[in-house]
Amino acid sequence: MNSRSSSISVSVPRVQHRPSFSSRLSSAINSVEWGEAVTPIDAATQKIEQEIDEIKRYEDFSTIDWVQDAAKEQVRRKIQRRETAGLLERGGHVGWRYRVWESYEAAQGWIVVTIIGAAIGMNAAFLNIITEWLSDVKLGHCKTAFYLNENFCCWGEDNGCDDWVRWSSIGPLNYVIYIAVATIFALTSASLVRAFAPYAAGSGISEIKCIIAGFVMKGFLSFGTLLIKSISLPLAIASGLSVGKEGPSVHYAVCTGNVISRMFDKYKRSASKTREILSACAAAGVAVAFGSPIGGVIFSLEEMSSYFPLKTMWRSYFCALVGTAVLAAMNPFRTGQLVMFQVHYDRTWHFFEVIFFIILGIFGGLYGAFVIKWNLRAQTFRKKYLGKYAIIEATLLATGTAIICYPNMFLRIDMTESMEILFLECEGAEDYNGLCEKQNRWSMVVSLTVATTIRMLLVIISYGCKVPAGIFVPSMAIGASFGRTVGILVQALHEEYPTSMFFSACAPDVPCITPGTYAFLGAAAALSGIMHITVSVVVIMFELTGALTYILPTMIVVGVTKAVSERFGKGGIADRMIWFNGFPFLDNKEEHTFGVPVSQVMTIDVVALPASGLSMRAIENLLKEDKYRGFPIIESRRSKVLVGYIGRTELRYAIARVKKDRSISSDAQCLFDKSPPSANSQAPNTPVASSSSSTFAGSADSSVDFSHFIDATPVTVHPRLPLEIVMELFRKIGPRVILIEYHGRLTGLVTVKDCLKYQFTVEHIDNPKDSRTLAENQEKIWILLRRCAWWISDKVAEISRGRIRISSPVEGDGVTLRLPSRSVMLDGTEDEDDIGVELEDR
Amino acid sequence: MNSRSSSISVSVPRVQHRPSFSSRLSSAINSVEWGEAVTPIDAATQKIEQEIDEIKRYEDFSTIDWVQDAAKEQVRRKIQRRETAGLLERGGHVGWRYRVWESYEAAQGWIVVTIIGAAIGMNAAFLNIITEWLSDVKLGHCKTAFYLNENFCCWGEDNGCDDWVRWSSIGPLNYVIYIAVATIFALTSASLVRAFAPYAAGSGISEIKCIIAGFVMKGFLSFGTLLIKSISLPLAIASGLSVGKEGPSVHYAVCTGNVISRMFDKYKRSASKTREILSACAAAGVAVAFGSPIGGVIFSLEEMSSYFPLKTMWRSYFCALVGTAVLAAMNPFRTGQLVMFQVHYDRTWHFFEVIFFIILGIFGGLYGAFVIKWNLRAQTFRKKYLGKYAIIEATLLATGTAIICYPNMFLRIDMTESMEILFLECEGAEDYNGLCEKQNRWSMVVSLTVATTIRMLLVIISYGCKVPAGIFVPSMAIGASFGRTVGILVQALHEEYPTSMFFSACAPDVPCITPGTYAFLGAAAALSGIMHITVSVVVIMFELTGALTYILPTMIVVGVTKAVSERFGKGGIADRMIWFNGFPFLDNKEEHTFGVPVSQVMTIDVVALPASGLSMRAIENLLKEDKYRGFPIIESRRSKVLVGYIGRTELRYAIARVKKDRSISSDAQCLFDKSPPSANSQAPNTPVASSSSSTFAGSADSSVDFSHFIDATPVTVHPRLPLEIVMELFRKIGPRVILIEYHGRLTGLVTVKDCLKYQFTVEHIDNPKDSRTLAENQEKIWILLRRCAWWISDKVAEISRGRIRISSPVEGDGVTLRLPSRSVMLDGTEDEDDIGVELEDR
Repeated sequence: MNSRSSSISVSVPRVQHRPSFSSRLSSAINSVEWGEAVTPIDAATQKIEQEIDEIKRYEDFSTIDWVQDAAKEQVRRKIQRRETAGLLERGGHVGWRYRVWESYEAAQGWIVVTIIGAAIGMNAAFLNIITEWLSDVKLGHCKTAFYLNENFCCWGEDNGCDDWVRWSSIGPLNYVIYIAVATIFALTSASLVRAFAPYAAGSGISEIKCIIAGFVMKGFLSFGTLLIKSISLPLAIASGLSVGKEGPSVHYAVCTGNVISRMFDKYKRSASKTREILSACAAAGVAVAFGSPIGGVIFSLEEMSSYFPLKTMWRSYFCALVGTAVLAAMNPFRTGQLVMFQVHYDRTWHFFEVIFFIILGIFGGLYGAFVIKWNLRAQTFRKKYLGKYAIIEATLLATGTAIICYPNMFLRIDMTESMEILFLECEGAEDYNGLCEKQNRWSMVVSLTVATTIRMLLVIISYGCKVPAGIFVPSMAIGASFGRTVGILVQALHEEYPTSMFFSACAPDVPCITPGTYAFLGAAAALSGIMHITVSVVVIMFELTGALTYILPTMIVVGVTKAVSERFGKGGIADRMIWFNGFPFLDNKEEHTFGVPVSQVMTIDVVALPASGLSMRAIENLLKEDKYRGFPIIESRRSKVLVGYIGRTELRYAIARVKKDRSISSDAQCLFDKSPPSANSQAPNTPVASSSSSTFAGSADSSVDFSHFIDATPVTVHPRLPLEIVMELFRKIGPRVILIEYHGRLTGLVTVKDCLKYQFTVEHIDNPKDSRTLAENQEKIWILLRRCAWWISDKVAEISRGRIRISSPVEGDGVTLRLPSRSVMLDGTEDEDDIGVELEDR
Repeated sequence: MNSRSSSISVSVPRVQHRPSFSSRLSSAINSVEWGEAVTPIDAATQKIEQEIDEIKRYEDFSTIDWVQDAAKEQVRRKIQRRETAGLLERGGHVGWRYRVWESYEAAQGWIVVTIIGAAIGMNAAFLNIITEWLSDVKLGHCKTAFYLNENFCCWGEDNGCDDWVRWSSIGPLNYVIYIAVATIFALTSASLVRAFAPYAAGSGISEIKCIIAGFVMKGFLSFGTLLIKSISLPLAIASGLSVGKEGPSVHYAVCTGNVISRMFDKYKRSASKTREILSACAAAGVAVAFGSPIGGVIFSLEEMSSYFPLKTMWRSYFCALVGTAVLAAMNPFRTGQLVMFQVHYDRTWHFFEVIFFIILGIFGGLYGAFVIKWNLRAQTFRKKYLGKYAIIEATLLATGTAIICYPNMFLRIDMTESMEILFLECEGAEDYNGLCEKQNRWSMVVSLTVATTIRMLLVIISYGCKVPAGIFVPSMAIGASFGRTVGILVQALHEEYPTSMFFSACAPDVPCITPGTYAFLGAAAALSGIMHITVSVVVIMFELTGALTYILPTMIVVGVTKAVSERFGKGGIADRMIWFNGFPFLDNKEEHTFGVPVSQVMTIDVVALPASGLSMRAIENLLKEDKYRGFPIIESRRSKVLVGYIGRTELRYAIARVKKDRSISSDAQCLFDKSPPSANSQAPNTPVASSSSSTFAGSADSSVDFSHFIDATPVTVHPRLPLEIVMELFRKIGPRVILIEYHGRLTGLVTVKDCLKYQFTVEHIDNPKDSRTLAENQEKIWILLRRCAWWISDKVAEISRGRIRISSPVEGDGVTLRLPSRSVMLDGTEDEDDIGVELEDR
């Protein structure tokens, strides 16, 4: 390897044009090219890189520059390879130790993915067991061992056993205990989240999308978040809230990946390597949640990852495989089954049923649009008024849910369980509460409709409350109950008119319609409608149930849903939450046509640093302002010839670094480009020897040399390049900033934020925060809620003679209350005259 | 829409810097920005665009510039929208006719995809029926109606019937007829291909990959190719050659898409829209071939498309859905089943079996590596010696295959059929020739091993012969026979030592090992090994058989295969064929680390045109040389300030266009940039009014203005940008050429070819053409073959007393024989001192 690379640098002497400045990266590349003589410099460069990386990790809410990251990674790999080779080589030829090291280096990725996958699988297994136990504890307990759930307590028996007893023999008391336990669970879950890891709340999918795209959110993937999410998730689900475990499952999987990969040097340093791992973990998260490995990979591709090369796909595949294999080996349900429920449909579908499938598809689309719209309004309300009452909100929601849901036979039980029941064929399988019986038909329709409606309202107000909460399974449950309703109705229709033309495809005297399949398709439609995903839904449904014959109907339903959803606004709930939160995320689902050049969008009045002549004081003042994330470097203010770019972090670090070595006067001149400007403009093609042997500190005492810290090859474009192509560049190549250069001169600067601002202006993205009447209505609801709270509080105080006070007196006017620990998060409400997005500075 | 866009141009007055030149695209964007006053110019610009596009379509073996394409598309869309709005508007407000037009415009994509999907589905159904009939015709015929195959002839009966008779009652005569019919089929197929559509030969997957990436191959997707491929494919398969229909299925699907989409204006003009359709068609092709809609989508994503945004995925999904739905509705097999064979495994797998699964995976990897290596050698041989004998080669291959395969029970029958038999569980299902019987075990092992070996050798020499030929199903058949062998052996082992620790997971006294599942997994391994695809294999296998419980084993096997394959060289057979043929295709499967800046790779001595001062004669001389595909435009030879880029086609067109209007003297000065050079270099930020009202011909008679034809915003990068990022730019943004600009000055130029050349040099891609001993061996084989041919020819002439002469005398020395009709194709042999790639000029 080593001999090869050196032979290349000799055989390719074409580098006539050697720019006369030297920067961190280019000097490193230089030295790699020109052999080993300059190793000390490499080491120094590398150290600088590492230190800057270290600082950058703690710079919250910034974006990663993928171009710089890739360049650094290349340099690092080359240097490390050579260094290790030098260390392990003996007598000029490559030793076996180098080979071992090389193999380890190559296999490291797989080792890491295996460890992560296994950890995710195990975590999922434990979560499944705990969730089941907690869910059962609401209803009763095991006499022989309190830590067993009903299934394990009555192992081998079918319908309960004597060891498993309900809490009380009195029905209403059970109801009360059910409510009380649910309340306690929600309270615990919300308190844990609030106290230890605010980021553990919610589903986390939107944030992870942004993180994978390069947005830095300190602590979002930390060990603390992982721990708290893993503990509070079973509690939240067992509390009966209309929340699912699939979104949070992605979150804890990605946390696991982040925590474990940080232990390996390779991933600690490289953001792009970490991104690969995070994408893989997202796949594994869905895979273990649904028992659907391929579905997980496709989900990661379709929904999570803005960048998904085949290598990442392959890593995701592997991670999902390991995760599911470990889960299967742990066998948490003791059914030997990977999937939650396996359905086998005896009958196939008929072409005339496509009409009803289309109805289901339309329902899915409408459901998605409706829930997204109202959930966003609920989120606005929550953010504005309930920030301080996160715990009480979640607790009250759980209590309310328990009170409302207990009476309905489909809402009382676990959502997964209810789906399993609804998916079943009537023939052969056991019957749940007479669901299949003909005389119950109309009461079932009513019951299912009620379940659909109530669940939908509950999802709207529950999704987003401050406990770990997903929206996958609730949506599927809603879709399933609606689908079953349709199925029962169609069945009734068929039995009413068995001889009509329409049903001519049915064989006489045997059941023709399978309501279970309608439930199945309804679940697919609702999932697709809420997330705006297609292929992954089909694969997940398929892996969940193994209903191969129903792949075409599933595709038709999902297709219709997708078409309907597209009429009602852009992006699924995850994308809408991203906009709502104002993360700088360029959506890759939509195609935009602006027809304007980038010059329409760029910032013109760029604060650029001249390559020489600026005093230390001026720079420090500029940094104190804290307004910009970085500065282009130009040759001089007059010529505006672009030399490079320096990030704020790098500049700060550079100043600190230089000051550590020697004292610098405030009048010292700062040099960002060591070559004299005249040399550049007059003889650009004369080869100038690269001065890579100089150290990073300047030579003269009166001047400070920062040329090592600048990025000499920032991404630049022509001012007339269409905006769409610039956005493609941001999306696909991923620089933090693009400089606009015209004939070598800096004319502007554009960031993702600029593009998004323009896009939002042009496309009039509706934002629930903008509407005045909405705000007024919300204010009214809030006043009403407070009155209720006071009234209840008073009553409780009265009854308990002042010993219990539920709500503390409300301070302030309830408008600007925000969770202190989360106030650092960009939540889009900081700036009212902004157009609804609050993005990072450049 | 219209009012919105005009309000933007007013409200965003930031365009301080307005470059003083005007080019086609930028002037069009300008005029769109500045309202309607300049519509005549737009129309003229559009006309020019269309004419250039028209010319470009016929420029073979060039690549599409996706950046330019996207820019053009934007302009076109804006203009068209405004024009139509103006046409259909009444009294200032948008009329209903405009709305209808807008809806049609939006729905057009879906309409086109639906039509294409339906056409693909129908074609697939007909092909299936014809293939089955032709396959059966080899063995016998239907007495009642000659056009029925055995299944339809004996409708409703299980094991043949009286209406279906073999050609003769004498066994050996049947053998002879079998051979004769196979020979005739192959002869017909090869003759059709040779005579009418040489591009219909082979699988076409490699070429389509390149076409989707932007490589222009005239006629590859034409109607003629579609027709001939559709006719000759059933013949080729029925001839019994070891070729599959899945690769060609992708080809005819993509042809269908190309032919149909060309009928719509939207797709006729836009290469990027067409690319979307072609990706979707590739998905539909696999979907109908395997009856696996989702597998098709994933295959298109994983293997076919270098660029696969979610929108394309969604189109692919839809296209595959329509295709499979139509196929299902046509129901060609009359089984009501979408998939070729549905298997239901009663038993699940045990963890100890993973060891054998890993063996299967390793086999898959080795199989892939072996076949790819030797098939490439066979291809070299074929290209070098057999070019002229394409028809006789295919015919002899079919005869040989028939002679060899008839005696073996697994080779005699159709590959799909043999797979179906091998996949089956022994219990319950019918038994084929005693495959499941214990006493036959060892003879079956021998028979299967023979089948595996012979099929493998046949695949190596058959894939690539000049008939439509895929490699999917042959590979799967090989994998299945190997897998079944392993399965039988494991079963024997278990029955030998039923009580050993190793088999402790097995329940006593019931069958534990299912050899059918091993065959299933072996097929997956071989498919993955030959194509180097992972997720799509799992999904396809899954959709083929619906074996949900075996998803984890499938994933393990495919994972092992992938890991093994990666040890043995890069890329599946499709990628290797691309390299072999020298198409300019940047692989997106591999990750490269070069650690060099782009300046190492770029061409330094670029022929650039000064923006003014060049005479018409000089330009015409330059074009006559025909050496370059385009020229950068610089301000002057001295300053080298980059102004733009003009493609050869555009330049030629521009000259023709200008000459059409008036006579131009050879001394006329050519202007590419109308602004005086001094204005640019001295006051770049002074707003200069865009002179977009001038026409495209120059004002002075002595000078010709080409400024309308140049691309003013070519993609430029800094010379020190790492090569990897430049390659990313090529891959993801897709320019035809990237200019290297340093401080505004042109310093170099880089094309995909330059990158590939460097990559091949660095990575020492082995090329079968390079080896001298190999060439010598091939020469020996060729001499041997010729001697055989002569000997046979002589014998035949002798026996027939000179009336029959099989082979015509060989002209020349047999080294440079090439198929004339294909000689236009870059086949990599043109240039011996090249490193094995012969790519387009820039």
